[in-house]
Amino acid sequence: MIKLAIVGATGAVGREVLGLLALRRFPLEPGSLRVFASSRSAGMKIGFRGTDYVVEDLATANFAGIDVVIFDTPDEVAAQYVPVARDAGCIVIDNSAAFRQDDDVPLVVPEINAHALSSHKGIIANPNCTTAIGVMALWYLHLAFGLESVTGATYQAVSGAGAPGIAQLERETHEYVRGRQTHDGTTPAFPYPILGNVIPQIGSFGPDGYTSEELKFEREGRKIMGLPKFMASMTCVRVAVVRSHCLALTASFRQSVSVEKAREALRSAPGISLRDDPRAGVYPMPITVSSSFDCEVGRIRMVHGRENELQFFVAGDQLWKGAALNAVQIAELLPK
Amino acid sequence: MIKLAIVGATGAVGREVLGLLALRRFPLEPGSLRVFASSRSAGMKIGFRGTDYVVEDLATANFAGIDVVIFDTPDEVAAQYVPVARDAGCIVIDNSAAFRQDDDVPLVVPEINAHALSSHKGIIANPNCTTAIGVMALWYLHLAFGLESVTGATYQAVSGAGAPGIAQLERETHEYVRGRQTHDGTTPAFPYPILGNVIPQIGSFGPDGYTSEELKFEREGRKIMGLPKFMASMTCVRVAVVRSHCLALTASFRQSVSVEKAREALRSAPGISLRDDPRAGVYPMPITVSSSFDCEVGRIRMVHGRENELQFFVAGDQLWKGAALNAVQIAELLPK
Repeated sequence: MIKLAIVGATGAVGREVLGLLALRRFPLEPGSLRVFASSRSAGMKIGFRGTDYVVEDLATANFAGIDVVIFDTPDEVAAQYVPVARDAGCIVIDNSAAFRQDDDVPLVVPEINAHALSSHKGIIANPNCTTAIGVMALWYLHLAFGLESVTGATYQAVSGAGAPGIAQLERETHEYVRGRQTHDGTTPAFPYPILGNVIPQIGSFGPDGYTSEELKFEREGRKIMGLPKFMASMTCVRVAVVRSHCLALTASFRQSVSVEKAREALRSAPGISLRDDPRAGVYPMPITVSSSFDCEVGRIRMVHGRENELQFFVAGDQLWKGAALNAVQIAELLPK
Repeated sequence: MIKLAIVGATGAVGREVLGLLALRRFPLEPGSLRVFASSRSAGMKIGFRGTDYVVEDLATANFAGIDVVIFDTPDEVAAQYVPVARDAGCIVIDNSAAFRQDDDVPLVVPEINAHALSSHKGIIANPNCTTAIGVMALWYLHLAFGLESVTGATYQAVSGAGAPGIAQLERETHEYVRGRQTHDGTTPAFPYPILGNVIPQIGSFGPDGYTSEELKFEREGRKIMGLPKFMASMTCVRVAVVRSHCLALTASFRQSVSVEKAREALRSAPGISLRDDPRAGVYPMPITVSSSFDCEVGRIRMVHGRENELQFFVAGDQLWKGAALNAVQIAELLPK
């Protein structure tokens, strides 16, 4: 049995972690659950399996006696408090980007590199949401054909920006229906209105014109898959979807590929739901993948004129496989 | 002065043609305008510059005496009635796919191949909306670097499916805000709900897994740009946007490329608005390109590890440059 704590328990991902602990019958030591958040939320009560838990202030947290702490906070909060929890003897599963590239921090998607967990020194990193979903599809194709590079574009849900992202879309939708102006200049979560729009910016821009979100796909993909030369050139785009991310990918392999072999590689792969019968209307979509443990892959096609390139569409619940589920899966693999 | 008729005048594109004739001060012979639609809409009145025009039934149309007819109808309606108008001595500008691949029918984007207009035999084809917007960006990059192929994904607005597409999104949005179930099984324009969703299907699936919409990009792109070996492998996706399509493209060229040279090629290109200052929040989006004559191009980047590949984002008003505007531009180039 595990004594568990959640930091950022009142956020969009934190609430999903709680739901998944119940849904997956996580081996939680009875009565041991602790929930932390910023001082703004401290004192709130969060219900879990019929008991109310009082949210504790992270700033004065005492982590002693807790086995595993799942962190879902902004990078700068994680940078400050994750070491505090580790130094108190906890194993930390951190969903921020603060430690993902540290050499002594495993970056783990359990279906791909669970073996890396054995080398942790108290901190285990959970990947970026889009990366986690994308590499799920790419990994099994890599095993079949030898992955070299990927280009593509994403369709990312507003809940990827947490509760403020959901709130902005909700407010704009209600204002639209009531006939009041949506574009009033206040867009708390995104740089522009998201209703009736798509925004080709997630994160901040680097010198080469890629955003931080786009560069994570390559850096984190290399570390998770153990492919130091893997190249990814992505365009990450926010769309007016509440939940679940999609990716339209073009992947290049060392070996020649075929649609049938690709389907075979994915058909019974753990964590994958092959949804590739397009004439029957079966393909990945946010409305089918939301609240699903598996990532959906479909629309698999040969790139015209290339023997070693495939194009396909991936959907995944970014609050689950892209965040909360992957963290809970890691916790499930830790020694009881 | 030109005697002009519009077939499909009550549809989403037909109404935009009327608006553009006024906005661009089209040299219309006074009192000559004729408007046609299916028998369902016959008898309706359409206002244009202060005069009401009665919609005539296409089934009993007499096109004699009209100089130019702009058709915006389903393919099968065009296949039946476009030849009737041509045989009556009219020049037909047809927005359907019925004649686009015919050898004696020019397929024209005026900025790219206006020269092809001289060889028409009474029918001129207007391209697919996504193709028209995509080739606008690709053409100027082709002139600079020599285009070979493109891969990519689209973000296509519901008005690309005409008035029923707009109606489905509108109905789903109102039902969502009122708290009634959106997913009631009736999705008149699309195979699934579009609110809170993205649908990776536009058109019907062919044997190789690509949709008819996706294949048009290659076939029509080849004809418009005069590049018989041009390859395009696209994933066309419907999103919950009312107006304007976006494309995230990865293009491969014969010559080595640079971001600065690409910007130079696009900066003063006719029909292009270069919006590529991402740190200042300047990039293509539906909300900025809607009701704009120009297509927006931005987010221009080198593909990692490739000297001859660029990635960029394009937005265009598909009711205008993707349909009505391109047709009116063609009409403006015809002998008066």
